[in-house]
Amino acid sequence: MAQKPSIPKGTRDFNSETVAKRSYITETIKQQFKVYGFQPIETPSFENSDTLIGKYGEEGDRLIFKILNSGEYLKKISDADYQERLESKLTPKISEKALRYDLTVPFARYVVQHQNEIEFPFKRYQVQPVWRADRPQKGRFREFYQCDADVVGSRSLFQEVEFIQLYDAVFTALNLKGVTIKINNRKILSGIAEVIGAQDKLIDFTVALDKLDKIGEEKVKEEMLAKGISQAGIDKLQPLFGLSGNFGSQIESLKSILESSEIGLKGIEELEFINTAIATLQLKTAGLQLDVTLARGLNYYTGAIFEVSAPEGVNMGSIGGGGRYDDLTGIFGLKDISGVGISFGLDRIYLVLEELSLFPDSVKENTKVLFINFGEAEAMESLKAVSTLRSKGINAELYPDWVTSGKQMKKQMNYANKRDIPFVVLVGEEELKSNRFALKNMTSGEQETINLDDLISKLK
Amino acid sequence: MAQKPSIPKGTRDFNSETVAKRSYITETIKQQFKVYGFQPIETPSFENSDTLIGKYGEEGDRLIFKILNSGEYLKKISDADYQERLESKLTPKISEKALRYDLTVPFARYVVQHQNEIEFPFKRYQVQPVWRADRPQKGRFREFYQCDADVVGSRSLFQEVEFIQLYDAVFTALNLKGVTIKINNRKILSGIAEVIGAQDKLIDFTVALDKLDKIGEEKVKEEMLAKGISQAGIDKLQPLFGLSGNFGSQIESLKSILESSEIGLKGIEELEFINTAIATLQLKTAGLQLDVTLARGLNYYTGAIFEVSAPEGVNMGSIGGGGRYDDLTGIFGLKDISGVGISFGLDRIYLVLEELSLFPDSVKENTKVLFINFGEAEAMESLKAVSTLRSKGINAELYPDWVTSGKQMKKQMNYANKRDIPFVVLVGEEELKSNRFALKNMTSGEQETINLDDLISKLK
Repeated sequence: MAQKPSIPKGTRDFNSETVAKRSYITETIKQQFKVYGFQPIETPSFENSDTLIGKYGEEGDRLIFKILNSGEYLKKISDADYQERLESKLTPKISEKALRYDLTVPFARYVVQHQNEIEFPFKRYQVQPVWRADRPQKGRFREFYQCDADVVGSRSLFQEVEFIQLYDAVFTALNLKGVTIKINNRKILSGIAEVIGAQDKLIDFTVALDKLDKIGEEKVKEEMLAKGISQAGIDKLQPLFGLSGNFGSQIESLKSILESSEIGLKGIEELEFINTAIATLQLKTAGLQLDVTLARGLNYYTGAIFEVSAPEGVNMGSIGGGGRYDDLTGIFGLKDISGVGISFGLDRIYLVLEELSLFPDSVKENTKVLFINFGEAEAMESLKAVSTLRSKGINAELYPDWVTSGKQMKKQMNYANKRDIPFVVLVGEEELKSNRFALKNMTSGEQETINLDDLISKLK
Repeated sequence: MAQKPSIPKGTRDFNSETVAKRSYITETIKQQFKVYGFQPIETPSFENSDTLIGKYGEEGDRLIFKILNSGEYLKKISDADYQERLESKLTPKISEKALRYDLTVPFARYVVQHQNEIEFPFKRYQVQPVWRADRPQKGRFREFYQCDADVVGSRSLFQEVEFIQLYDAVFTALNLKGVTIKINNRKILSGIAEVIGAQDKLIDFTVALDKLDKIGEEKVKEEMLAKGISQAGIDKLQPLFGLSGNFGSQIESLKSILESSEIGLKGIEELEFINTAIATLQLKTAGLQLDVTLARGLNYYTGAIFEVSAPEGVNMGSIGGGGRYDDLTGIFGLKDISGVGISFGLDRIYLVLEELSLFPDSVKENTKVLFINFGEAEAMESLKAVSTLRSKGINAELYPDWVTSGKQMKKQMNYANKRDIPFVVLVGEEELKSNRFALKNMTSGEQETINLDDLISKLK
C-alpha cells in the first residue's frame, strides 16, 4: 500500500496564490526596511544548542525543536547515564543542534561573532522562518516567518522615533490604514512597581489595569487587592484610573503618580521625546497611543516597548511588536551594546489583509496567455511566438500536448479557465499559413486574428 | 564566562552584501520561472519521517537530519527495545519528523496530497533551503538552497525543449554567456547496456568513456575490458569512439550502434526531436551539446537528462541539472504521472558570477545618503528631510547619536565611508537657519549647499 501523504501538525503547504500574497507582504516590508537604511543578514536554520538553550526561559527550552545527532549517537553516553533513562539527561548528549526559535538570539550571536566586520550602529533586517513546538491552534503554527529590524550600538531615542515611522510606512504601503501603534516604557512600569511597593506584582497590576474598559474601576481595584497589592499602593494609582486616550494628559497623570520614582520619570521623559518628535514628523495613516497596560512578555526589554493592533473592527491580536533592550549581546560576551527593534507578524497581517480584501489584483503573477496546442507543426510555430513574448517579459505558456479531438480542445480551454489565465491564442492550420494569431479574451469571449507585433502590444 | 559564539559546521551566516547577491540570483531565476508559466509553491521545512526515509537510498537515509520528538520521548519505548541500545531501532521511536533533504520528494508528496486542487499539467517552481548531514567541504554545505522547476502530468517533449530554453533564458539574464547545456537520454544508456550485454555495467561504461579525451581510445577500451565488458561488446561500440562534437554526426553514430535496441532508438528519436526544435528556436547565449557519458545519479530519471556546465575557463562542477522521470508520485499512490524538471545550483552560480565579476553594481541596495547628526534640533530637521526622501523611495538614514566633538564628527563620516554610503548631508546651525542642506559626494569630495527639492532630484 502506498503511503497516504500528510504533513506534520502545525506546518503548512502554500499554494501559488498564497505564496504570491505572502511575498507581497514580505517584499513590501523589506522595501521599507531598505528605505530606512536596514541591511539584510541571514543566519542558519539551526544553531548549536548552547546558543539557544536557556535564552527563552524553561517553557521556551521545551518548545525548541532539537535535532538528533547523526551516526552512532548513543556511543557517547555512559552506561550509568543510559540506565537512568531521563530525557533531561539524554537530550543534551544525543542532540547538539536545534532549530532557530526566534531571530533575536541568532542576531545577538551574529553581532558578537562578527563584531569586527560590523560598523556600529548596526542596522540589520532579517526575514526568515522560525520553529516552535507549540501546541498548534488557530493562527499559531510550528513553522512561521518573523520579519525583524533592529539597530544595535546606539542609545539614541531617534531610533524609537524612526521605528514608529517605519511601522507607519509599512502599513501605509500595504494600504492598511488606521493601525494603532501602542507604546509604553519598561521604566514607567518599573516606576509604578516602585511606587506601589511591589516589584514582583507588575504583571498582576498590568493584567488588572488592562480590564479597566471591560469591568470598571471598582472591579479592577478589587482584583488588585486580591492579588496582594496594598490599599495604600492602589490609592497612589488613583490618577491612572482617570487616564483618557490623550497622550499629553496621560503623561501628566503618570507624572503625578511617578514623581517620587527616578526611573519612572526617566521613562516619562523618553516617552515625551518620542511623542513630540512624532507629533512634528506626523504619521501617514497610523495612530500612536500610550498604553500603560502594555508590558510585553520578553524579559530583555528595558526601555520603550511597542505593539501594533489592527484597525478597529478587525478582531486580531497584535500584528507587530518590539522595544529597547539594553543588554542583549551580553550573554555572548559583548557588554553594553544597547539595541532596539521591531517585528512584523506575517501570518496575522496576511489574515487582516485577506479580511479587508486589501491584496491588490496584481499580486498573483499568473500566466497571461496560453497557446492552445493543435499539433506538432502548429506547436512549433506557437513556441516561436511564445519565446518572443517571454523575451518581452510576458508570462506565456504553450499547452504541452496537442489536440487529438474536440474533447481535447475543450480540455485545453478549461485548463486556461481554471488557472485564471486571461488570454488564449489559437494557432490552427489557417493561422499557421497566414502567420497570424487568433487571440481570445477569456473574460469577454472576444476573439480577433492579429499578427505577432499586435499580439505583443495587446499582451504587454 | 560568556559563551564564545559559533555556528554548526557546514552552515553559514550571510552578511548583507552576500544576501543581496544571492537574492539577485534567486530573483532572476524566479522571474524567468514565472515568464515560462511556472507558479510558486512552498512546503514545510520538516516532513513526517516516513515521507522522506527510504526515498534517497541507504546513504541518503543516513544524511537526513532527524528531529527529536518533544516531551517525554522515551516513554513510548519498551524496556526490551531500550536495552538493545541500537540507533536503528531507537531513531524511528524518538524521531517522527525530519528536515527536507531535497525539493523533489516533498513536491511529489504535495502533488499527491493536493491532486484535487491542482490543474494538470502542473508547472511549479520552488526555491527553498534543504539540509543534508554530509561531511562539509569546499562548496558543500549542510544547509543550502535548491531552485527547482518541474512540470508533472504530460509526456510532451516540448517540455524538455522549454527547459533548455529556460536554462538559456536564466543564464542570459544573469549575463553568464557561453554555458553548455549537456543532454543525454536514459533510454540511450539503457540501449547501450542492452547492446553490450551488460545492464549492470552501465556506470563502469560511462565512467570509462568519459575519459576518452584524457587517456585516448586504447586506454578506455582496456578499462572497459578490465571492468568485465566483453570484447564483442566493445567492438559494437566502435562508432562511439569516433564521436565528434557535432550533434548530428553523434546521433548517426549512435543510430548505428543502437539499431537493434528498441529503447535505444526511442531515446535517439527523443533527442532528435529536442535538437531539431532547439535548432529552430535558437538559444541566446548557451550551447546545447549531446554527451553520451552523462548519466546523473538519481535513479528516478527515465528519459532526457540535463546538466549545465559553466563557461569554458571556469573550473566548477555542474551549475544545474535535471531530467524526465516517468513515475515519481507512484511512491505516494498516484501512478502514471510523468514529470520533468530542472534545478539551479545557487551556491555554484554565485561562485561563477563572483569569479567572472558578473554581479551588477546595483545589486547592493545600500543606503544612498547619511545625514550627519549635529544635535537635537538639527537632527529633528534632518529627520524631516530624511522622511521626505524615504517617501520618495530613496534609502536614507540619520546618524542616531549627535556630534559632541570633532572626533565624533569624524566618526560619523568614517561610518558613511566604511558602509560605502555614497552621499552625506550636513545640517549644521547655518543650514538649519537657511533651511538648506550641504550635500557631500563621498567619492569626489565635492560639496554643495542646496534646498530640499534639489536634494531630492540629486539623490533620486
